[in-house]
Amino acid sequence: MTTKNKIVILTGIPGSGKTTVLESTLELLQTHGIRYESVNYGTQMFEIAKKEGYVKNRDELRKMDSDTQKKIQTLVGEKISKISLKTNVVVDTHCTIKTPAGYLVGLPEWVSKSINPNVLVLIEGNAMEIHRRRMSDDTRVRDSDSEELIDEHQQMNRSCAISVGILTGATTKIIKNNNNELHNAVNELLHIMK
Amino acid sequence: MTTKNKIVILTGIPGSGKTTVLESTLELLQTHGIRYESVNYGTQMFEIAKKEGYVKNRDELRKMDSDTQKKIQTLVGEKISKISLKTNVVVDTHCTIKTPAGYLVGLPEWVSKSINPNVLVLIEGNAMEIHRRRMSDDTRVRDSDSEELIDEHQQMNRSCAISVGILTGATTKIIKNNNNELHNAVNELLHIMK
Amino acid sequence: MTTKNKIVILTGIPGSGKTTVLESTLELLQTHGIRYESVNYGTQMFEIAKKEGYVKNRDELRKMDSDTQKKIQTLVGEKISKISLKTNVVVDTHCTIKTPAGYLVGLPEWVSKSINPNVLVLIEGNAMEIHRRRMSDDTRVRDSDSEELIDEHQQMNRSCAISVGILTGATTKIIKNNNNELHNAVNELLHIMK
Repeated sequence: MTTKNKIVILTGIPGSGKTTVLESTLELLQTHGIRYESVNYGTQMFEIAKKEGYVKNRDELRKMDSDTQKKIQTLVGEKISKISLKTNVVVDTHCTIKTPAGYLVGLPEWVSKSINPNVLVLIEGNAMEIHRRRMSDDTRVRDSDSEELIDEHQQMNRSCAISVGILTGATTKIIKNNNNELHNAVNELLHIMK
Repeated sequence: MTTKNKIVILTGIPGSGKTTVLESTLELLQTHGIRYESVNYGTQMFEIAKKEGYVKNRDELRKMDSDTQKKIQTLVGEKISKISLKTNVVVDTHCTIKTPAGYLVGLPEWVSKSINPNVLVLIEGNAMEIHRRRMSDDTRVRDSDSEELIDEHQQMNRSCAISVGILTGATTKIIKNNNNELHNAVNELLHIMK
Repeated sequence: MTTKNKIVILTGIPGSGKTTVLESTLELLQTHGIRYESVNYGTQMFEIAKKEGYVKNRDELRKMDSDTQKKIQTLVGEKISKISLKTNVVVDTHCTIKTPAGYLVGLPEWVSKSINPNVLVLIEGNAMEIHRRRMSDDTRVRDSDSEELIDEHQQMNRSCAISVGILTGATTKIIKNNNNELHNAVNELLHIMK
């Protein structure tokens, strides 16, 4: 009989520093001898959609009709659930994504239930700091939401996390990643993941 | 094979100016040659409940027991879904309604899933402006919530919208309809609906 | 044919004064000749888990694996639903509980749907007052969250309540229990329960 592995969903809006927090935490986990497979949800979507013959490049993902999207999303969820039979998994994804048509939920019911996570982590930041991080980011083209809209987005993500908790039983962990406090954020995530 | 028509759910608390925004947008859509059938959810509830023999007048709707209500609600959802086979549909309804027993959800799971919308629009306003609009409205008897309670109601509606998004995949679009900015609100709704 | 009995779920974070409000309201209801069975969700969990042989003491409840937990939770929900065939029921529980792994939802889908409540009441308080009540409480060991975290917790509970409303059709009633206004809170709960 095997002990159950953990499935952690890690989310955070652009500029929250999610990736930095995750990378530092994974390094520390390795020194503790704790194995995690890190899965990027978007990358998995693309790989499975390509394999199934629906798309050739990543831009085409958004153009799939909603039934195909649902089908691929469910396959990704099932793949993640399968990986978790062998090892702990951390899924790098979004609660909601801002699109011209509004907030698009990244964890709809069929995805949430197929992943069936233990914990959903929200990496949050101070709106002013996130705004500045975005403005000074030369490597990617980022939207320049006002601080008010950044707060709104983070608020919507909290609602999303609670809804996922209601559908799956997962806990919602809010981790603040403020400037000069990366160490704290990493420490908190470490406690969740180890 | 037919291209899929859009289903837009339009919501907003009393005084948000939802109806004004919708009417102006529908006029503009017509000049663009885009057809929408506008469905008032409450009116549909009444018509179907009357046809099925449950009520004679609109006041009796609230007195139906919850099983009957669920049944009628699902029939309305199915009717809307059917209309969308022929044309785009915009559904005028509420995320939550304030009742003496608390916030009543206008889009419970069985309604949301039977409508299966593409977008859920929240027409929001500044609490002070909504308060004033309500106080100066002679044509209807309206409750005079404090600004704090107006904000609370709009906040609850955001949570509701996200939950609907999780169950259906619909996006949540927040459109601000502030005084002297009707033009912007109409423009934003136009971009969603066209 | 029997008229349907009410199922009220009563929630509130530690220090909200939930229990005080409930006890005073139940006394008043008795003078009105209205019968309610008061069910503590946690106590029921323990009793059923013990009867089914999963635990011997209450501390072991949290150590049950998630499948067992789900099973017991569903049994509790069904028991509550059964009690409501004979009398009104008020269920004393939590929307979310703060744990080291984050906010744990007390009313996941399978619990909410098996209870199928009419109303979900949130007893809320001013964060400063709740903070002081917690600090001066000698009888229990309580965490000393900051006022900001108290507000955050109450906000998460509102999202939770709306999600439960979407899954079940229950209304969400927010009742403020501020210092020196217990009378108002009791009066509001009385109106919901009678």
